[in-house]
Amino acid sequence: MPVVVQNINRADPAVIDALGRAGVATVHEAQGRTGCLASHMRPIYSGAQIAGSAVTISAAPGDNWMVHVAIEQLQQGDILVLAPTSTCDNGYFGDLLATSAMARGCRGLVIDAGVRDVRDLTAMGFPVWSKAISAQGTVKETLGSVNVPIVCAGQSIEAGDVIVADDDGVVVVRRAEAAEVLKKAEARLAAEEAKRRRLASGELGLDIYDMRPRLADKGLKYV
Amino acid sequence: MPVVVQNINRADPAVIDALGRAGVATVHEAQGRTGCLASHMRPIYSGAQIAGSAVTISAAPGDNWMVHVAIEQLQQGDILVLAPTSTCDNGYFGDLLATSAMARGCRGLVIDAGVRDVRDLTAMGFPVWSKAISAQGTVKETLGSVNVPIVCAGQSIEAGDVIVADDDGVVVVRRAEAAEVLKKAEARLAAEEAKRRRLASGELGLDIYDMRPRLADKGLKYV
Amino acid sequence: MPVVVQNINRADPAVIDALGRAGVATVHEAQGRTGCLASHMRPIYSGAQIAGSAVTISAAPGDNWMVHVAIEQLQQGDILVLAPTSTCDNGYFGDLLATSAMARGCRGLVIDAGVRDVRDLTAMGFPVWSKAISAQGTVKETLGSVNVPIVCAGQSIEAGDVIVADDDGVVVVRRAEAAEVLKKAEARLAAEEAKRRRLASGELGLDIYDMRPRLADKGLKYV
Amino acid sequence: MPVVVQNINRADPAVIDALGRAGVATVHEAQGRTGCLASHMRPIYSGAQIAGSAVTISAAPGDNWMVHVAIEQLQQGDILVLAPTSTCDNGYFGDLLATSAMARGCRGLVIDAGVRDVRDLTAMGFPVWSKAISAQGTVKETLGSVNVPIVCAGQSIEAGDVIVADDDGVVVVRRAEAAEVLKKAEARLAAEEAKRRRLASGELGLDIYDMRPRLADKGLKYV
Amino acid sequence: MPVVVQNINRADPAVIDALGRAGVATVHEAQGRTGCLASHMRPIYSGAQIAGSAVTISAAPGDNWMVHVAIEQLQQGDILVLAPTSTCDNGYFGDLLATSAMARGCRGLVIDAGVRDVRDLTAMGFPVWSKAISAQGTVKETLGSVNVPIVCAGQSIEAGDVIVADDDGVVVVRRAEAAEVLKKAEARLAAEEAKRRRLASGELGLDIYDMRPRLADKGLKYV
Amino acid sequence: MPVVVQNINRADPAVIDALGRAGVATVHEAQGRTGCLASHMRPIYSGAQIAGSAVTISAAPGDNWMVHVAIEQLQQGDILVLAPTSTCDNGYFGDLLATSAMARGCRGLVIDAGVRDVRDLTAMGFPVWSKAISAQGTVKETLGSVNVPIVCAGQSIEAGDVIVADDDGVVVVRRAEAAEVLKKAEARLAAEEAKRRRLASGELGLDIYDMRPRLADKGLKYV
Repeated sequence: MPVVVQNINRADPAVIDALGRAGVATVHEAQGRTGCLASHMRPIYSGAQIAGSAVTISAAPGDNWMVHVAIEQLQQGDILVLAPTSTCDNGYFGDLLATSAMARGCRGLVIDAGVRDVRDLTAMGFPVWSKAISAQGTVKETLGSVNVPIVCAGQSIEAGDVIVADDDGVVVVRRAEAAEVLKKAEARLAAEEAKRRRLASGELGLDIYDMRPRLADKGLKYV
Repeated sequence: MPVVVQNINRADPAVIDALGRAGVATVHEAQGRTGCLASHMRPIYSGAQIAGSAVTISAAPGDNWMVHVAIEQLQQGDILVLAPTSTCDNGYFGDLLATSAMARGCRGLVIDAGVRDVRDLTAMGFPVWSKAISAQGTVKETLGSVNVPIVCAGQSIEAGDVIVADDDGVVVVRRAEAAEVLKKAEARLAAEEAKRRRLASGELGLDIYDMRPRLADKGLKYV
Repeated sequence: MPVVVQNINRADPAVIDALGRAGVATVHEAQGRTGCLASHMRPIYSGAQIAGSAVTISAAPGDNWMVHVAIEQLQQGDILVLAPTSTCDNGYFGDLLATSAMARGCRGLVIDAGVRDVRDLTAMGFPVWSKAISAQGTVKETLGSVNVPIVCAGQSIEAGDVIVADDDGVVVVRRAEAAEVLKKAEARLAAEEAKRRRLASGELGLDIYDMRPRLADKGLKYV
Repeated sequence: MPVVVQNINRADPAVIDALGRAGVATVHEAQGRTGCLASHMRPIYSGAQIAGSAVTISAAPGDNWMVHVAIEQLQQGDILVLAPTSTCDNGYFGDLLATSAMARGCRGLVIDAGVRDVRDLTAMGFPVWSKAISAQGTVKETLGSVNVPIVCAGQSIEAGDVIVADDDGVVVVRRAEAAEVLKKAEARLAAEEAKRRRLASGELGLDIYDMRPRLADKGLKYV
Repeated sequence: MPVVVQNINRADPAVIDALGRAGVATVHEAQGRTGCLASHMRPIYSGAQIAGSAVTISAAPGDNWMVHVAIEQLQQGDILVLAPTSTCDNGYFGDLLATSAMARGCRGLVIDAGVRDVRDLTAMGFPVWSKAISAQGTVKETLGSVNVPIVCAGQSIEAGDVIVADDDGVVVVRRAEAAEVLKKAEARLAAEEAKRRRLASGELGLDIYDMRPRLADKGLKYV
Repeated sequence: MPVVVQNINRADPAVIDALGRAGVATVHEAQGRTGCLASHMRPIYSGAQIAGSAVTISAAPGDNWMVHVAIEQLQQGDILVLAPTSTCDNGYFGDLLATSAMARGCRGLVIDAGVRDVRDLTAMGFPVWSKAISAQGTVKETLGSVNVPIVCAGQSIEAGDVIVADDDGVVVVRRAEAAEVLKKAEARLAAEEAKRRRLASGELGLDIYDMRPRLADKGLKYV
């Protein structure tokens, strides 16, 4: 059963980069409020905003062997996405693995477990979104799989799906829907700008979105 | 039952601002070690220290409609305080709502749920204390109430109560007790300064507070 | 039963300082992947990296009396380590206690509970690793013990054990093993440097560590 | 500040008992889906279903002194409701206190902390809804208050409010609203019986509640 | 996007029933230690052991409208499987919905949220595996989907997949793999019987599984 | 480092059995309110009450190999106590291992992780106190140790320490203190009987324990 899928399809790099610029909240809304990983996935430092193609890892709890295997599968612009097969907060990944991943063009790591050497990773500019920060080391004894479908922090992710991550967390976009989602995200960004100006001037959302009649219909009382 | 209370009483602005300068820990002690919201309420960025009058929001899980309604009720110096009617970590609030709230004079948000666009909120200087950071969006389908009593992160809060928030978390002061609490807080700050100097010089709390006899009475043994 | 042990043995200061420079992850690996405190122990600010001798405190929930007692036992280079006798997130420690502890040469605090005045502590450069940040104050009613063996965040710690703490968390080293662990840590650091260069050049861990045959033996398939 | 309020008002005993027979879910719905304590409040044994007047206790973490004080305030048909002033899972209450409380007519305990001697309590038929079961004992050092307003497991509760508890958890009904809520609860129970028969016969809720048009309006597609 | 898929494929009923008899732990092992839902999914009563075809529900937090929609899609032998689109512990389901579901042949409910009326459900013999027991009611305002792929308690589940649930929790078997997994499960059960007899007689696993040489090879020391 | 300690000292069997009869809460109080394992350690079925000598296991997350090793070390009246080296909820132990352990005279299992086959274990009368119930299986790849000091659910435990477990949870008694603790426990039980009768007759703890003067001294007000 343990398997490494070597050839995966990726979305158009220009689309991926544009999704990264749009950011997590906008992309999540653009695809119908889906795809957000659980809110326990937090960046190890503020300010990183990335997008890339998922290279997925399914790993046993406390075993980071498959990270080495996955690094060989990385291409420029990829993001490692690791889900342990059961709940674990060990530090699967540190500065040496980051050095190796960066040398292969990796843009970051999303891991529903722990990470360590966070000061070094910050200095290297290698962003990580994780459930925990932990120095607890791991073994290399049990096989897992690379580039198979996984469930990471509550979302189903396939190899080649687009991962977008920033200070708000992480969202996954299906590879085949990436271009369509980008279109909606960009429309959304354009529309937001006008709204922001109106709201900044003191106009109310109640009026801009014409909410008052529906609120009254539903029975909201002002006293 | 869903209701918006439009006229609420607020504490004296000078008292509110002075409570803000005193900070959460001091105010909490000054009112007899009461009023702290649960420790899961964390600021989205460090260094903000605010006080203001609570405009309260009771909202359904995953539904931020009432935030729009509440913003109309804001006055200069208010703080939005949102409690979902059941546990929820969705991102109820982002940069557009913050733009709107700031335009009405709002000083910040305290929410026992999630917030998003945290990089923008940080850049705007709009502080938030929340249970989670999450891009997960919400709907506008179910009514809630504004300026009714709520329980937020373990504390009962009424509209017009004074909210103080800083890097230590959030504390609520009953509106009617604000002036009295301020007096005690200021006395406390004055007293602390002298103690700090003595402690900095190497004098022990054991001696400054004359703890040794009571420790001995209770039976503490030195070996 | 409440007792203060006054004379404790400490490791060689040079060894302690060198363990501090090696950092948590390296020290943890050097002693056979043991000694890490639970990952909920997080620093109140980034960038601190310390080592010192544990002065241990066993305290009742919501009672910080023993901190005053422990401060008298501090020597230059010590670290306070507090475990409540049951789960608690109160703010046992703030800027006044930090002032007092610093005056006695204390390097920091490790507490499986809460801390407050974190802005002041940050400004003072007094690092804390804690389970929570909370302004909730404590009482001084119930005796505890100082410099007895405790369990803190999942690790057994004795007075005089070496505590190492940085952005990755906290690790404890048995006093008697400190010199030996340091030797292994330094060997590890030396070896890592060469590996880092090879990995940075694009060489794979799969090859550097000769993992391919064992992966194949275990049955990993590439497709 | 520590205070014992001796004379509290209670709801009509007949109303209280009838609310108890209606059960938690029905009462919660009848009062507009409000009043449920957090779902971590679980019964120590199955099958108990009670209602009574709240005698409230605000107690320090790890300190059960006020339980003794509160027991003196109990009248026939009351329920003890304890909220610690900060998060705590200690076993505040066991078989001796239950013996004492039962002797005063107490119907049960609701505690956002721990309880112990659960086998004895079960044998005695003294029901408890708690956050934890823990043998960890408590001290008697710090004052609290009895019959003051508290927040327990996310709900604001005043002395004399009606508490209803069963296998679904705990709900609080404001004393002044008890009769009105009972009326709605009984109407609800009556209406449910007819619905249950129709549903049991295979009729669908979609049809009974005429949901199909609104589902179609909102855009639900069948494929 | 909200959609109801009406025609789903199901596994062979005889295979489903046999998987149910094998039980969760055996089935999980038989398919290579995969498919277990998170351990927070607990039965509302002990002793139920079921298998059935998943009818999946994706529902907004605090909104049980789609349960009504899903019930129409049930066939004899199905199991409802509900995942909220974000973390929620509301009581989505109670005795009326259970009455309706049972009338359609439903064998039980698996829900990564809350359930209520648990005493009635127990009396009716309608088993539920849930994250929480909560009387907190839900609304019917927001559309979701039925029989689409969901992630429930950490596992990806498609409509028609086989769900097996017992006192150990819940496991999902891909529909297409059900027959193959059953074969392995039955082989496993047959093999276990002989082992059980040998172990019961006092023979050691160390010897039965010939573990001693490998333990020695890895370096285990006996002292 | 992985090691199996073969000869351990055990407490007097008569003392152990008497501690078991005294139960967890009494033993915990008798030894000065120490030794309780964390409250997340719950029995898989109600009514078991045992005591025995700890055979300790330190195991990697998701790896139950050392359980087989530990079973060989069991003597009549022992209890297996397993702590994973990092947080894990996998099902390390099921009916086959229980069969083997029972054949060696084992009285039960205390595990700060998961257990499975709980229906079978219940039928066999093999009690377990665990953090989780989970069918998730484990591997046999990484060595651990047997009969070394461990930290289990917040308590330090050495091989041969006495474990007492019942419906209130688990407490550890140091082997060398077992006889002394038993004496205090029995004194406590004797004293409780008289108190229980007085409390049952309606006398108040306030009077029996003469609490009123001290309450008044501390400032409790009755209003």
